[in-house]
This record gives sequence, structure tokens and C-alpha cells, in this order.
Amino acid sequence: MAGSIADGQRRGRRRGELTVGTIARLAGVSKPTVSKVLNGRAGVASDTRQRVEALLREHGYRRPDAIAPAALLEVVFYGLERHMAVEIMRGIEPVAREHELAVAFTEVVEPTPPGRSWAEQLLARHPLGVVAVHSAFTPEQHALLAASAIPLVALDPSGEPLHAIPSVGATNWSGGIAVARHLLDLGHRRIGVVGGPPDSLGARARLEGCRAALDAAGVRLDDRLVRTGEFTFEHGRDLGRELLERPDRPTAVLCGNDLQALGVYAAAWRLGLRVPHDLSVVGFDDIDNTRWCCPPMTTVRQPLAEMGATAARMLITLAGGGVLDQPRVELATALVVRESTAPPA
Amino acid sequence: MAGSIADGQRRGRRRGELTVGTIARLAGVSKPTVSKVLNGRAGVASDTRQRVEALLREHGYRRPDAIAPAALLEVVFYGLERHMAVEIMRGIEPVAREHELAVAFTEVVEPTPPGRSWAEQLLARHPLGVVAVHSAFTPEQHALLAASAIPLVALDPSGEPLHAIPSVGATNWSGGIAVARHLLDLGHRRIGVVGGPPDSLGARARLEGCRAALDAAGVRLDDRLVRTGEFTFEHGRDLGRELLERPDRPTAVLCGNDLQALGVYAAAWRLGLRVPHDLSVVGFDDIDNTRWCCPPMTTVRQPLAEMGATAARMLITLAGGGVLDQPRVELATALVVRESTAPPA
Repeated sequence: MAGSIADGQRRGRRRGELTVGTIARLAGVSKPTVSKVLNGRAGVASDTRQRVEALLREHGYRRPDAIAPAALLEVVFYGLERHMAVEIMRGIEPVAREHELAVAFTEVVEPTPPGRSWAEQLLARHPLGVVAVHSAFTPEQHALLAASAIPLVALDPSGEPLHAIPSVGATNWSGGIAVARHLLDLGHRRIGVVGGPPDSLGARARLEGCRAALDAAGVRLDDRLVRTGEFTFEHGRDLGRELLERPDRPTAVLCGNDLQALGVYAAAWRLGLRVPHDLSVVGFDDIDNTRWCCPPMTTVRQPLAEMGATAARMLITLAGGGVLDQPRVELATALVVRESTAPPA
Repeated sequence: MAGSIADGQRRGRRRGELTVGTIARLAGVSKPTVSKVLNGRAGVASDTRQRVEALLREHGYRRPDAIAPAALLEVVFYGLERHMAVEIMRGIEPVAREHELAVAFTEVVEPTPPGRSWAEQLLARHPLGVVAVHSAFTPEQHALLAASAIPLVALDPSGEPLHAIPSVGATNWSGGIAVARHLLDLGHRRIGVVGGPPDSLGARARLEGCRAALDAAGVRLDDRLVRTGEFTFEHGRDLGRELLERPDRPTAVLCGNDLQALGVYAAAWRLGLRVPHDLSVVGFDDIDNTRWCCPPMTTVRQPLAEMGATAARMLITLAGGGVLDQPRVELATALVVRESTAPPA
């Protein structure tokens, strides 16, 4: 299997004999402009950069001095998703091992520590590919990845579809629908929402899926019972308290993720409300903690390990010079009914 | 800083000019025996192997054909400790990045998947060093590590002091004492224990520290209230239920780790007992979950990230040809008082 990757790389280099001049002609720009994009330098308009990058990718361009890739698959995490990191790593790692690749782990921290940045160090290692978990590369870094022909796949548990690169996500919208239907079936009509950040398209998809299912059942989501905030325990707790202290408090609260739902558990506990007797609570993600809380949590499962494995397989295909069947893969979410939901009292 | 490591490696190679013959003479064995140890082959008595390995380490022997190490620090996890893995990784990673090293992640899974084993693959990558988190290398693998002059440091959150290699742990014994004194101060006298596995020396240290503090206060730990099991939520729940269903149930339960304590929370919840009003519960480790449960958990903090950083620094010292101040480092544990402990009702 390692052999097939090496073969692919050789194919990649052959295709890489395409010159800077050809790319410049195809893009309708000057050769120095293509060089600027290749070297990640500033001074190129954003749409020009994107056009050049797309051509570099399309033609599998590799710099003549490109170094053979290390047998290394890099995984870059953005701090926010750390409670999911192990599950994702354990999906990626067996696939990498099968192909005799090491898996390197980077966590992006802010502010950036002194010295060469994580991205510069990563690029200098010439990995076979990079899985970016909800993490942001700058346009310059994207250009360097493209120029080194290092494939990049976005793994995005919060559902933000990233730019023009291949990505793996889960069906957030249908997850929202499944949860809303479950609460409707139990008889809930006054439903509150503690949603994820409004600038997260994944959080929006969950919320809007829920709203659509309620609409279809003739139940209007009351905007006064909808709150949004960060995907954290603390935001869940504080927003949950706001909802639960209202005289017309909801009989059920849908949350943007499991951490927010644990926060709503804590808010209910402080107010002396019992889950599910006084309040049903539903999470999203199905992290380990959903089985360790009291009561065990009803939630929507995101198949994080499978998402990691899928991203790794996509990278290995790309690194081998192959073409992906589809640039965006969404794995199915599934409602997991435990004990935090019951008919309203 | 990367320069200093490279320099150290050169020093290592110079010292490595020591021959197999010299090692054989020093060990009082034949040259073929030294070769067997170097190549990880069988047919060498265990004490002979240990003596030869010690000499190889002591003299920084490297095989003439040894490959220059990759700028890679490997971290190997044994499945059990996965809820701690992210915290450990985030301690190791900044130290590695400062030295421009990638951090590779391996999780040991059983049964071993087909193909080259994780250990063979890891050794073939020639990393600068290996942090083994509660994971077991066979004598053959140890020999290969020694022969490749790949330094190994054990990071052991469950406190088992591993063989003759450098290691990092935490002060489990004093943690046990701190917890017991806290419960005594609150007025508890009928104290139950849900401890970790009896074959884990770290679990034993926690339990015996607790027993010593109780003895010193003239309070005898009632053996009928002591249970031991795996470091899991499920074992904590089942053993906790055994204790809580007794007519003379304890007023407080000390647990071997936080997952077991979350299990005791669940057992109490099923029986309609309130923490801390009807029962005090204390964990050990201070994983994230201790802040997300109701009530927030009193526990003993193990500084996992600092332990990871320490292990990484030890490896970098060893890889640079340096000598460790001490082969075993124990970082301090600290009692963290939250809301799961109160005076007995």
C-alpha cells in the first residue's frame, strides 16, 4: 500500500513538469504573479490568487525543487474542538498505520508563540497530507500547500463548509430535524434552544433543521426561547439559566452541542429542576460525557472516528495522485435516545 | 535549539564508535550475544539482556548503520488513558514545537491489527525519542530502542513505576493523604473506597496514602467498605452501588480516579441519594469532566500537561546527549475542593 502512494507521487512529479509559464498563460496573468502565489507572497488580488491556486491544484503542479513527502500525515486542531480530538485521532490513526504513515498532532493556540509558526514548521516537514480540524489556514499558507502539492482535507465537526478544499462533515440539518421530531413525539410544544455561534454554518444548520421540523408540524419556534452562544459548558449554563428563569420556561431545551447541554443540566440543577421530569434536554455530538452524566443524555451522534478515517482516506487518495469521488462527504448523524428526554410534566 | 539537538546527536555518534566487542567484554558475554540484544532477537537470558542494554545505554552506543533521527517525537498511548490523552498532548506539543519537532500520536489497540506492528513502524521512523504513556514495550522492543539509541521516557498517570527507564509521574501517595484529611476535617468517619486495579501501583499508592492518613487520625478504614476495579465509569458505578446499598453505607466515597467517581455519582443518582447532602464523593486526576458534572467534583489534580511537558524535555535532553538530573520525576498533586464534599448529614 505504501508502494501505491510512492507511485502516485511519481505520477504527481511527472505531471508537475508543467511550467510556471503555462500556468500563467492559463490563468491570464504574468509569470511573476504565479511565482508570488507559489511562494505565498503578498501583492496578489484574492480572486487572482484563487484562480492560480485552482490551476495549480487541477494540474497537480509541483515545484521542481519539491522534496519527496515524509511518511507523515498531519492533523491540525483548533483549540475549540479539543474534547473531540481523541475520537477523531483514533479514527485517523488506524488508516494511517495501514499505510505505514505516522500521524502528527498540532494544536493551534492563540496568541501564536514566538519562533516559527506551527504552519511554517508543518510545511517544512513536507507531510504527505494535512487534515485540518476546524482550523484556519491563511491564503498564504493555502498557496504554500498548493505549491508543495501537499493535499489538505478539512474535517469539520461544527459543519462550516470550508472554501474550495475537500472536506468531511456530518448531516447537521437532518440531525436538527431528528431531534425536533423526537421532542414533538413526546408531546413538547414549548421548546427552547441553546444554539451554537451564529457564524457557524453547522450550528445554523442544526437550528434551522429543528425549526423546519417544528414548522412542518405546525409548531412555531418562539424566538424569545432561542439563545445562541459559544459551544462551551459555560455558555450553555448561562444561556440555559436565562431560559429556565422565565415564567414561561420551556419544557424542553435543544442544544447546539453536548457541552452546552451539560451546561443546561447544571443550570437546571442549580434551580432545583430535575431532568427529564421537569425539563427535557438534548445535546449534539455524542461525546463520551453523554454517558457519564445523570441522567445519561439523549443526543445526536456525529460519527467522529469515521469522519477522521474518511478524511485520512481522502488524503491518501489525493497523495497517491487519485481523484476523489466527491470533494465533500457528509456522514450520517443519528438520534441516540437515552434518559434526558420524557413527556412534559 | 534545534541546533543543540543535532550537536548532541553528533556527540552521540562519536561516543557510538564504541564497538560491539567492547560492550561484550564489559558485559562478560560473547559478541554474538551482544548482537542478538542489538537486533532484538530471542535466545538471551533476561538478566544478560538487561546488563547488555544498560551498558549500551550508559555508553550511548549507536549502530554504525544507524540512521539520523527524524525531527519527530513519538507519543504512544495505551487505550485506557484516552480521556487524558489531549491534556498530555497539549503539554508535550509546545515543547516539541519550540524545538521544531513534530509530535506523532500512536494508540495501542488490542488485538494487534494485521501488518507491521505499531512498534515496528515507530522504530522504522527513527524518531528522536518516545514518550510511552502507560504503555508496555516488550523486552525485544526495548532492545531495539536501546540499539537505535532512541531515548524512551515513561509518562505514567496511573503511577506504575516502569522498569529501568526514565519516567514522569505524580505524587499519588500524598494525593491520597490530602483527600483523606479533607474528609476527616469535614467530620467523616465511615469512609468507603472505590479504588483502582490492585495491580496498579499508582492506585495502591492512592489507597495506602488514604489509609495512612486515617490511621494517623485514629480512624480505621473498614475493609468491608473498600472495593477495587478498573479505572472506568462502569466499574465505579457498579462498585459504588455495592457500597451504597449496604445498611451501613459510607457517608463519603474516595475514588481511584474521576471516571470511577462519576460512576459513583450515577449510582447515587439511581438510588435517589444527593451528592453531597447524602454522600460526599472525591475523584482523582481532575479531568475536564469534574467541572461539568452536578455538583462540580472535589478531586486531586494531576498536572497532566506539565507531566507531558516534563517528559518531552527529558527526551530532548537525552536526545541531545545530555544527562538527566534524576531518572524519575514526580510532580505534585493538589486537592481541588469543589462541591461534592460536605459534612455528613
